[in-house]
Amino acid sequence: MSGHLAVIGLGPGDARCVTPEASGELAAAQALYGYAPYLDRVPVRAGQTRHASDNREERARAAAALRHAALGARVAIVSGGDPGVFAMAAAVCEEIESGPEGWRAVDITIVPGVTAMLAVAARIGAPLGHDFCALSLSDNLKPWELIERRLDAAASAGFVIALYNPISRARPWQFSAAVERLRRHLPASTPVIFGRAVTRPGEQIDVVTLDRADTVAADMATLVIVGSRETRLIARPGKPPLVYTPRAAAEVSA
Amino acid sequence: MSGHLAVIGLGPGDARCVTPEASGELAAAQALYGYAPYLDRVPVRAGQTRHASDNREERARAAAALRHAALGARVAIVSGGDPGVFAMAAAVCEEIESGPEGWRAVDITIVPGVTAMLAVAARIGAPLGHDFCALSLSDNLKPWELIERRLDAAASAGFVIALYNPISRARPWQFSAAVERLRRHLPASTPVIFGRAVTRPGEQIDVVTLDRADTVAADMATLVIVGSRETRLIARPGKPPLVYTPRAAAEVSA
Repeated sequence: MSGHLAVIGLGPGDARCVTPEASGELAAAQALYGYAPYLDRVPVRAGQTRHASDNREERARAAAALRHAALGARVAIVSGGDPGVFAMAAAVCEEIESGPEGWRAVDITIVPGVTAMLAVAARIGAPLGHDFCALSLSDNLKPWELIERRLDAAASAGFVIALYNPISRARPWQFSAAVERLRRHLPASTPVIFGRAVTRPGEQIDVVTLDRADTVAADMATLVIVGSRETRLIARPGKPPLVYTPRAAAEVSA
Repeated sequence: MSGHLAVIGLGPGDARCVTPEASGELAAAQALYGYAPYLDRVPVRAGQTRHASDNREERARAAAALRHAALGARVAIVSGGDPGVFAMAAAVCEEIESGPEGWRAVDITIVPGVTAMLAVAARIGAPLGHDFCALSLSDNLKPWELIERRLDAAASAGFVIALYNPISRARPWQFSAAVERLRRHLPASTPVIFGRAVTRPGEQIDVVTLDRADTVAADMATLVIVGSRETRLIARPGKPPLVYTPRAAAEVSA
């Protein structure tokens, strides 16, 4: 009766980005857990129960799914993007570590997916073509001073920076503060990409320079990629520009 | 006659990790270009030509595919993992920028895929559950001093580090040197994950501590994830451990 829990990445949104492995695990589950908008992406199946929960309730959702799986059921938790990137896989591990011993006997399968930064990068060229980092701007789970230190370290060492959770109603000033911080290290002309709702209805991609980056409206559906000193823009007549970071880097930046 | 070029991510290897979008673009192409082992993963189709090339010939492969597409053909280049991460999308952009004006008129579609670090992370838990970076250890295209500076910056600021291209026959000492460098910043007990040929025949996952990381045999099919000070290991009776990085970080590390 040890049960099975799959933690499934649905990718950026379009059904054509859901891997066959993810589709197979979704079809095999007896119960689905997840944030309601992600559950809404999954086709309804007879005999499969659905347990929707709110955005902020990752730990409670993980615990509920583990409790259910530990009864011997085949349970799935869905995540947008990849479940291992600022998403449910870490929350499940946290619950297993702190939960009842029996939860360690549950079979865990994590199904990777296309995370937002890869989907946004693909729409615009190859901004992540050289060394890069992924940083959540949410200071719910870490102090703002640590975020600043990481922005400093990444920008000064020449990493391209993908910013997850750039802004929310509860965190209105953090994105502007991050842009301000990055200006200490990077030229005003550095390309900044805003990818909103990529592959979903209302998709929007904007490319601006760092000096204008705090004038773009971002939200929790936006992923921001800040280039390095090497990131370049190729103009194309009648087409959107390509933005990319060359594979070669000649010298230590800054 | 502007043509179409798709740059397609095949994911880590298993066909169940190839997105429907990638499969659709592969089926629609008149000609396929790629490194031979990646081309070998694609089902053969009548009337579709195949142009295999060697590992090191990214620029030449990109140019050949663009030349072909610019004649009005529907051409695809295949990449392992995600084409935007240390792969063909940046090489294609480099060629477009430096090539004939007509190449800017070619329609470019980049199809994202599951990159190696996501596939390895999914096999072991959630090591990338907090801020992380991706760094290529190849010093073919950048000076070793820059790699050292980035290792210093990432480890001291608390990023988990995914190392792509950790070692090759032509670069035998770099991985050990990187491990040595990381020991300046991280405790001997830091978990290090070696994922070799993940989702493919011969898959192997090893978890060791940083003090032993240079004793594991790695190769070009290996992706290495070096934890941060926060990365934890959960022992499970009768099952492999889970390795994860909690979503919360309490203070500035180091």
